[in-house]
Amino acid sequence: EVKIYGYLDAAFGSYESFTFNGAGAITTERSTQVSSGNMMTSFIGFAGSEDLGGGLKAEFALESFLATDTGGEVRNMAGGFWGRASWVGLSGGFGRVILGQYDNAFFTLGYTYNPFGSSMVFSPSMVSWYSFSLDPTAFGADANLGYDTGWVNSITYETPNLGGFTAALQFAPKESSGGNEGNKNNYAVSGAYNAGPLSVMAVYTNSGANTNSTAYIARQKNWGLGASYDFGVLKLQGQYAQIKTFDAVSGDEDSKAKFFQIGATVPVTPAGNLLFSYGETKNEFAGVSGEEKLKQFSIGYDHSISKRTGAYVAFSNKKIDSDFVAIDDDSANIFAVGVRHSF
Amino acid sequence: EVKIYGYLDAAFGSYESFTFNGAGAITTERSTQVSSGNMMTSFIGFAGSEDLGGGLKAEFALESFLATDTGGEVRNMAGGFWGRASWVGLSGGFGRVILGQYDNAFFTLGYTYNPFGSSMVFSPSMVSWYSFSLDPTAFGADANLGYDTGWVNSITYETPNLGGFTAALQFAPKESSGGNEGNKNNYAVSGAYNAGPLSVMAVYTNSGANTNSTAYIARQKNWGLGASYDFGVLKLQGQYAQIKTFDAVSGDEDSKAKFFQIGATVPVTPAGNLLFSYGETKNEFAGVSGEEKLKQFSIGYDHSISKRTGAYVAFSNKKIDSDFVAIDDDSANIFAVGVRHSF
Amino acid sequence: EVKIYGYLDAAFGSYESFTFNGAGAITTERSTQVSSGNMMTSFIGFAGSEDLGGGLKAEFALESFLATDTGGEVRNMAGGFWGRASWVGLSGGFGRVILGQYDNAFFTLGYTYNPFGSSMVFSPSMVSWYSFSLDPTAFGADANLGYDTGWVNSITYETPNLGGFTAALQFAPKESSGGNEGNKNNYAVSGAYNAGPLSVMAVYTNSGANTNSTAYIARQKNWGLGASYDFGVLKLQGQYAQIKTFDAVSGDEDSKAKFFQIGATVPVTPAGNLLFSYGETKNEFAGVSGEEKLKQFSIGYDHSISKRTGAYVAFSNKKIDSDFVAIDDDSANIFAVGVRHSF
Repeated sequence: EVKIYGYLDAAFGSYESFTFNGAGAITTERSTQVSSGNMMTSFIGFAGSEDLGGGLKAEFALESFLATDTGGEVRNMAGGFWGRASWVGLSGGFGRVILGQYDNAFFTLGYTYNPFGSSMVFSPSMVSWYSFSLDPTAFGADANLGYDTGWVNSITYETPNLGGFTAALQFAPKESSGGNEGNKNNYAVSGAYNAGPLSVMAVYTNSGANTNSTAYIARQKNWGLGASYDFGVLKLQGQYAQIKTFDAVSGDEDSKAKFFQIGATVPVTPAGNLLFSYGETKNEFAGVSGEEKLKQFSIGYDHSISKRTGAYVAFSNKKIDSDFVAIDDDSANIFAVGVRHSF
Repeated sequence: EVKIYGYLDAAFGSYESFTFNGAGAITTERSTQVSSGNMMTSFIGFAGSEDLGGGLKAEFALESFLATDTGGEVRNMAGGFWGRASWVGLSGGFGRVILGQYDNAFFTLGYTYNPFGSSMVFSPSMVSWYSFSLDPTAFGADANLGYDTGWVNSITYETPNLGGFTAALQFAPKESSGGNEGNKNNYAVSGAYNAGPLSVMAVYTNSGANTNSTAYIARQKNWGLGASYDFGVLKLQGQYAQIKTFDAVSGDEDSKAKFFQIGATVPVTPAGNLLFSYGETKNEFAGVSGEEKLKQFSIGYDHSISKRTGAYVAFSNKKIDSDFVAIDDDSANIFAVGVRHSF
Repeated sequence: EVKIYGYLDAAFGSYESFTFNGAGAITTERSTQVSSGNMMTSFIGFAGSEDLGGGLKAEFALESFLATDTGGEVRNMAGGFWGRASWVGLSGGFGRVILGQYDNAFFTLGYTYNPFGSSMVFSPSMVSWYSFSLDPTAFGADANLGYDTGWVNSITYETPNLGGFTAALQFAPKESSGGNEGNKNNYAVSGAYNAGPLSVMAVYTNSGANTNSTAYIARQKNWGLGASYDFGVLKLQGQYAQIKTFDAVSGDEDSKAKFFQIGATVPVTPAGNLLFSYGETKNEFAGVSGEEKLKQFSIGYDHSISKRTGAYVAFSNKKIDSDFVAIDDDSANIFAVGVRHSF
């Protein structure tokens, strides 16, 4: 019995983004769009499991990101159609072992501890870590994570829940024999604790700029923390992360980005939440004075029409600051109304 | 509960197409092929709905065109895998609102009022509007519609059925700030009336040559009419369309194509229909004397073996005429036998 | 009722492959990988059938290869997403007629008569016929089959089972009018006999280097034999094939490859089989003295954990020999442990 499931998200709004003007200074450009995946990237998935007896279970998932607006598939960094998940695993009393392409813990931390979840438009952590290039021309490296939301070619071990504690180990070999300082295997370790209203999580990754992969593109040592506390009348959520990038050949430190986010989810009606989030990234480069900054503030209202369908309205402002690039317009706004439907 | 559905169509036949000989004159080339989608483009789809209460319903559809003969996907003009449909919508007493990629009314008119439906091989309207380039070298613009069968990045509103009357509005923003005469938003409006054996429909579209899209490639103002009447012993079907193309920069009129089609569906056995269709396109260019012409005549027999499976045999002749290009052979024939299976 | 089914296979192992060193001599390169499809290429499929009455049945299948490790689709030689199967067919007392993309008999012979089935890693026949290029630089032609595991644009007829005998005819037109010696239609004929522990099969193909296709790339006349006998305590399997390639323009003989494989499957536990296979390819070129050789030996243990899930461990050694290219390291080993899950 294969389960078909997924999520479609379509919005209408005004989208302002940073670009370069003719003279090479950063400016902004606005357009009205029908857009996909503003609250979460749309996808379709197929999954199933088999009871192997003795508490053992075999499981699999195949999930493909897509763009509701154009009908396009949204590929992962490795170029794969099944860009959201493609794995087979065994689970039991010992926990779970997964082979293939599976969520990286930095992504889990990213969507768990901010009110806008995995929104690549409104969540400051998602935007800063995965999609927004602070300074695309002046430096090769910027403040993004050097890998995808899911790790391809990976083996993941997840512990069972031990009194609220869970932990995960993830390993992805570099898959080539060629060598330099950056062509290293990729490792992630994470731990989380959940007890009633409290949730905390920590992640550390050590990744390479793998020669034969477009999925691991920077030698980095990163760590992140996330925490949330549900007071009932509101849920507070916070994140901190440090992304340290090293030169792929020499191994010298290249840049260091520090990120924090603080957010709140406020249930204003039985079916509706107000969402607030503010995040800030500061990026510095070794041996160069000066810094780049991204500040993002988002506010939204999400309303569940039913168990599987909802509507939302959200506004976000991004502000950039750079000691390296001329800036004409440092502020970009996004405003959108949308519908979301899970199936 | 997600529904899986689709349609596979495979044929064997002799296909003649227009091409250029070494001296630059149009000639024809014939080959024997196993071909896909001769009666309707093959596809697979996933769809579902959720009852939201109060007569409201959430719906979605994801549909991907494919080629049964080669296993290839058949992408839309935007390059999308889900090229047939990708939308989420809300419906109720007010009608239906749809966001994403959804059928354009010109396509609906196209397949509704001719015996060969949406056949990109045998239906004169489909061939003339979407797939056949009258004169690929002499002029940049020709008699095709400047957009796809479905409109990406669109919002569609469909009225409920009001005593046989239905209407639809479709809007697709240009999705860029860059501007010239042709970089405009896209609009479609249509109305239809169905009463017993009679069906009529009218469509008007105003579309742009959108800078950031491969899905809206010509500034056009088009209109079309379709009508059918079912006499029982035969069903008559007719279409008329005018495609007016403007220069994307200056906004001056470039060309005007006039199309008509007349067809008949004759039920010769309880499960079998004879199909006849004749269509003609005449294309003229502003400030240039002379014209291009495409005439297509198709005849077929379609037999339903069961509710979901059928077989067909069809013949089509295309004749071209051009005051601008030398022609060696002005006539191309297609003959095919095929099977079709809906699932 | 559409059936969703498929197979996911993920392994962890050490993979050594042949490559060229700086001086142009063949050497080997080893890397540790998480890999997909080591026992059989992973895929997802959709299929269904309809009872047409009178013993007639309409059937279809759409199947897409994929890479569990990266989430990538694995396309066929024609570049299709539905690279494993895309066909619609009618079956009844007369047998079965299939239009579209369907397994070629050489592939059926390939996976039926060796212990490692259709493994593109461990099965000597699959590796030699489809994936391993003996000598990628010295000669244009090598010992591979000049077509895919499935034949696109094809019509296949399968006889019913006549007292253990079955036969199949497959035809794929060249689909172009352009002509040279190699631009020919493609034909395959095969026959098999199954009786209790004995199974034998023979295949002959005559294929072209079709001008308009990336799926038929060599003019070849090939034949193959396969046989297996199940003694209970072990099953013996053998294959022989001859691949004769002709120049696509002149039609002269270019090269002749001779292949054999001998293998055994030994059930050592109720749920586990030891697998042994040895294969050898010898390739000679017309008018050139000397030869190329590929020898592959594979040993594995496959254990079924349940009806749909299993685990395996396997080792393989490939040895090459060439009178035309300098060789630094002639031996490449692969060792992998993996899980497989059917759904």
